[in-house]
Amino acid sequence: MEKIFNPSSIAIVGASEKTDKLGSVILKNVIRSGFSGKIYPINPNSTEILGLKAYKKVSDIKGKVDVVCIVVPSRYVLDVVKDCTKKKIEGLVVISAGFSEIGPEGKLLEQKVQIIANKHNIRVLGPNCLGFINKHNSLNLSFAADKPLKGNIGFFSQSGAFCTAMLDMSIPKNLGFSHFVSIGNKSDINELDLVEHFLEDKKVKVISAYLEDIVDGSLLIQKYEQSKYRKPLIILKAGQTEESKSAIESHTGAIAGSIDMFKTGTSQVGIIEAENTRQLFNYMMTFSWSKPMNGKKVAIVTNAGGPGIVATDSIIKGGLQMAKLSKSLQKKIQKFLPPESSSKNPVDIIGDAKAERYQYPIDILAKNDDIDAVLVLLTPQHVTQIEETAKIILNATQMYEKPIVPVFLGKKQTSVGTQIFYDNYIPVFTEIDDAVNSLKVLSDYTTRVENFSKREVNKKWKKIISKEKGKHFKEVEKYVKKTPRILPDEITEKLALEMGFTLPRQIITKKMKDVVEFAKDKYPVVLKVGNEVIVHKTDLKGIYLNIQNEQELKKAYEQLSKNILKKLKKKTFTVVLQEQLTPKVEFFIGANRDGDSDVYKPDIPGFGHLVVFGKGGIYTEIFEDFGYVLVPASKEDIKKSLEKTKVFQIISGARGQKPLNVEKVLDQIYKVQQLTLLYPQIISLDLNPLIITQEDTIAVDIKAFVGR
Amino acid sequence: MEKIFNPSSIAIVGASEKTDKLGSVILKNVIRSGFSGKIYPINPNSTEILGLKAYKKVSDIKGKVDVVCIVVPSRYVLDVVKDCTKKKIEGLVVISAGFSEIGPEGKLLEQKVQIIANKHNIRVLGPNCLGFINKHNSLNLSFAADKPLKGNIGFFSQSGAFCTAMLDMSIPKNLGFSHFVSIGNKSDINELDLVEHFLEDKKVKVISAYLEDIVDGSLLIQKYEQSKYRKPLIILKAGQTEESKSAIESHTGAIAGSIDMFKTGTSQVGIIEAENTRQLFNYMMTFSWSKPMNGKKVAIVTNAGGPGIVATDSIIKGGLQMAKLSKSLQKKIQKFLPPESSSKNPVDIIGDAKAERYQYPIDILAKNDDIDAVLVLLTPQHVTQIEETAKIILNATQMYEKPIVPVFLGKKQTSVGTQIFYDNYIPVFTEIDDAVNSLKVLSDYTTRVENFSKREVNKKWKKIISKEKGKHFKEVEKYVKKTPRILPDEITEKLALEMGFTLPRQIITKKMKDVVEFAKDKYPVVLKVGNEVIVHKTDLKGIYLNIQNEQELKKAYEQLSKNILKKLKKKTFTVVLQEQLTPKVEFFIGANRDGDSDVYKPDIPGFGHLVVFGKGGIYTEIFEDFGYVLVPASKEDIKKSLEKTKVFQIISGARGQKPLNVEKVLDQIYKVQQLTLLYPQIISLDLNPLIITQEDTIAVDIKAFVGR
Repeated sequence: MEKIFNPSSIAIVGASEKTDKLGSVILKNVIRSGFSGKIYPINPNSTEILGLKAYKKVSDIKGKVDVVCIVVPSRYVLDVVKDCTKKKIEGLVVISAGFSEIGPEGKLLEQKVQIIANKHNIRVLGPNCLGFINKHNSLNLSFAADKPLKGNIGFFSQSGAFCTAMLDMSIPKNLGFSHFVSIGNKSDINELDLVEHFLEDKKVKVISAYLEDIVDGSLLIQKYEQSKYRKPLIILKAGQTEESKSAIESHTGAIAGSIDMFKTGTSQVGIIEAENTRQLFNYMMTFSWSKPMNGKKVAIVTNAGGPGIVATDSIIKGGLQMAKLSKSLQKKIQKFLPPESSSKNPVDIIGDAKAERYQYPIDILAKNDDIDAVLVLLTPQHVTQIEETAKIILNATQMYEKPIVPVFLGKKQTSVGTQIFYDNYIPVFTEIDDAVNSLKVLSDYTTRVENFSKREVNKKWKKIISKEKGKHFKEVEKYVKKTPRILPDEITEKLALEMGFTLPRQIITKKMKDVVEFAKDKYPVVLKVGNEVIVHKTDLKGIYLNIQNEQELKKAYEQLSKNILKKLKKKTFTVVLQEQLTPKVEFFIGANRDGDSDVYKPDIPGFGHLVVFGKGGIYTEIFEDFGYVLVPASKEDIKKSLEKTKVFQIISGARGQKPLNVEKVLDQIYKVQQLTLLYPQIISLDLNPLIITQEDTIAVDIKAFVGR
Repeated sequence: MEKIFNPSSIAIVGASEKTDKLGSVILKNVIRSGFSGKIYPINPNSTEILGLKAYKKVSDIKGKVDVVCIVVPSRYVLDVVKDCTKKKIEGLVVISAGFSEIGPEGKLLEQKVQIIANKHNIRVLGPNCLGFINKHNSLNLSFAADKPLKGNIGFFSQSGAFCTAMLDMSIPKNLGFSHFVSIGNKSDINELDLVEHFLEDKKVKVISAYLEDIVDGSLLIQKYEQSKYRKPLIILKAGQTEESKSAIESHTGAIAGSIDMFKTGTSQVGIIEAENTRQLFNYMMTFSWSKPMNGKKVAIVTNAGGPGIVATDSIIKGGLQMAKLSKSLQKKIQKFLPPESSSKNPVDIIGDAKAERYQYPIDILAKNDDIDAVLVLLTPQHVTQIEETAKIILNATQMYEKPIVPVFLGKKQTSVGTQIFYDNYIPVFTEIDDAVNSLKVLSDYTTRVENFSKREVNKKWKKIISKEKGKHFKEVEKYVKKTPRILPDEITEKLALEMGFTLPRQIITKKMKDVVEFAKDKYPVVLKVGNEVIVHKTDLKGIYLNIQNEQELKKAYEQLSKNILKKLKKKTFTVVLQEQLTPKVEFFIGANRDGDSDVYKPDIPGFGHLVVFGKGGIYTEIFEDFGYVLVPASKEDIKKSLEKTKVFQIISGARGQKPLNVEKVLDQIYKVQQLTLLYPQIISLDLNPLIITQEDTIAVDIKAFVGR
């Protein structure tokens, strides 16, 4: 990777003098960017291009070639790559389009190129990409129309257009980049490589990306969390709805995975999700330029009451806190203010404030240890000194080790002020919500980094690496086919007992005799048809509740037989007979797998298992009272997620009720996670209801589908 | 009002030649704005100001004076106003600060001024305001540093600073206003006056406001809905959190009411809420300039796949729909596009698209009746023709009667394109989410106006105007004091029976003998202490469930007696004995009042009653599964709101269950609304649980607090 971004020599296949050709644009960009290494234009029809000696093919070059950039139509690419293998090159940058994004034919071509590259240990960027820019090596190997400013953000994008849009957005606001990488179809180099590379590269302070699919979510999350470097990683993820997924397929040929898994996994390890380009830009600016924010308490200084109120709303709604100013602090501030102003938070220095009236309140608040950030609002009123105020705020941002964040509301008059901040690399906003939202993300990130425990993280991931197998692994394996199959009740029961779940007193059998015998001392009982026969028991009347005696039981059994014979033409079938339990609180735990059963191996794509839990019973889907963790999660992760559900309040004894066994619930969720690791063949699992009492939890009904 | 915004003569008290005085700024603004009427500067120390003859006081002026603008310190204002009464003036514009916003003393002064003004039929704008600008009369009677462009938006703001910020924002984007009004402390002229005035003023197409409190929410909502004019009204409401409410108090001295009432009431009648200044601006621009949008179906044309996907996500998440393009439509489009492009929605005309490639897809989509708006995305790629593309889109916006909405992603290169749209009054965006959000609001508004039924609306409001009284009005009245009191169970039962609620079989009594007798044929029964004794029955053990026989009943009664004697030192107390019902689904209906018991009279401030309903039982607060309507609501309003709750799905028979009596539930909610109108003394009402069965609904427990 290092050699690709910092080559000492580059060949450009398809270089040209014709200004409307991409090959010409790229060659010019390389030359003009000030690249100090060797440049070899390749074009069979030229001997010299833009003053440089041209070659017919890469293998004709005498000297060493680190990187070959390919800009010829896709049908020629395979030959070019074959020719490249004659030399010892490090990387290919394939700009050419016409690969997997156009369908099966293109996909095949892409694979062929990749096979050759793999064989010769050549890394590939693209195809169907814009190229890359490395500002710290003064190299622009791309056809971007403009070039980014130099800075500390490592940015990469699965959409070339997003690169150019972001670039165009960043220049007027002075936001600089270390790298700007268009990864196109990412046949080889993908988000995982770039995140790893940027984490290690000292020139990179912030990593930022636009992505449509995640090749190996599980590994990305693992690598990010386990890295010895802590850097913010911001991702704008397209393809969050069913409708957009089909658009992605026709765009890059990628399949966008489950958005729940992405959101759960990333937030669990502190990867920051940007919801739109504005957030992406604001977060990049904030992390690139801002001081860290070590808490949630914000103080406001404003020259107008209205915006102060709006900012207060925004802070509370956004999950931050209004700093409480002590009487003595208020007194100190009031000394420098006219009597009509307010020294409470928001500190209102009122409309006739000139620049200097901003200074003391900002200083006093910034010095206070109980305040984590100062939001400074300016509206352009009659006497407002916009430039001078900007300079006073600028000065404060440089003096204090916490964020002092200006929000200048307006545009025509105020832009002279905002520009001063951009010029000096200070995050500035024109909208209150943007400022507050960025501070929230900054504060969360700072807190997470401070509480980060290397030991805990490694312990967590060890589970995946150890690859321990379940006791009944081989038995489960028998049911694993290409298409999902439900596990028979006997096996599910074994797995449940292996995990130590408490089950109701129950018998699984095919004989009425056994059922009647077993039920004798257990009335009232429940008779259910086995999982392998009918999945939705309630919908298809495969369940008989509250059976009071033998007579009722026999009647139920006979009805069931008739039903099954009629609907499924089966004479023998499995039933489960259980004691009838009266639920106190019904809970559920489920799991779903992204990727195949080898998903936890390093080279296998997918996020692994998402464990879902919440209010159970028949109305689970209606209440949507869900918590999520992505496997592997720590007990702490599970607890945090459980605490956000509503049913948690009920379990822990809301409204004067006795608390139920919360610890046991946590333990059960943890054990379901264990189960997915011991049996990665599980595609989906549904434990519903899990009855929770004061003493225990009882797993009444478990269904598991397995598959390759 | 008309005379204030269109005066033929103005006196400015406090006019001055000193450029740093507000009086000088205002006088200059009036002169420079091109006002064609008479201008009288008032200043005891001058005979001429800026070439105009100056007067010592207003009463010295010989001619007619329509409006007097006051810019002197607050301590002189009362004298000025007294002097004004010597002439027949129409309105006062009090710029001066130092009134209710500074505390009780200022409030008193404000009241004194208002009393005099009322007596002489003089309307007052302010105090503590910026003044106003009427672009259609070329009058700038304000000290705003800049002036707005001429347009069709009537804007008013409770914060002067918001006026200036909005102004500063609007000028570079060419957004024009008809009126720009700073209402300050609104001692007289408030949102109600301005909304009524702007609804009638033909120069106003869009009404827009920043507000911190709503003086009479009920009346504002009524006037807006009952008006014969349909115009969009956009409100940015500050003071949505407890924290910001205290800031409001110290700012304008107003009390910000319940945000739930504001949100419910406004959305019920189609008033549009902007959540921040960006939304406020975007909505103003959209409604001021855009064609209407008669549905939800959006088609996208884009020169880049990535942004197309992001836009798809945004459309679906934002509540709009992706238009489905028929095969034949796709074929038509594909004819004009290169083979690698996509003619599905989003239509991807790919990165090498020059301006003309945009034209045919836009035309074809805009002509299609099944498409309600076309979103046109541009990213600045290598060959992109930004200006030319803007012109092609501009042309289309003028040809078709539906929104064609450009989103130009970027800034440095793209701003030349966006400026073309601003210059031509076409809504344009630089962020996809902004465009989609604005289209959603536009589509909702257009649909609402089309389905608007004058008859239905008048019927609805008639209830409030008729002021019919409940049968037991006088009896209830006995319990109405300044502080809230709970109604005794006997009275609550009477009200419930008056409304025709089904109650459990029950007796309300103070005697154990009655209880035992009544219970005889009704076991199992429930014994509860009366409402007037204990409000939270469950928390304080004032309720005994599932009593099976007389022995248990007597025991429960005795325990209850002991408890009450011990805790409340009371010997006699009311109990309610009810048959025990097994709930199928527990529901609740509540009501809360904003304003006092006269709130439905025209001059009494407040929103009236908010009726809340949803999942009942003891966990109501935990599930927060609420629907809201503000009184008066139509059955349709109630239904819409009920359908959004989760419990609605259960009632109407989710997961194969038999549907319960939904009609009866709607009817009960409607009746609770009736009850609040018949008994406006009700401060709060809590019907929980309302048991819903297939046949009926049963009101098990009702508590009502009344008060003035």
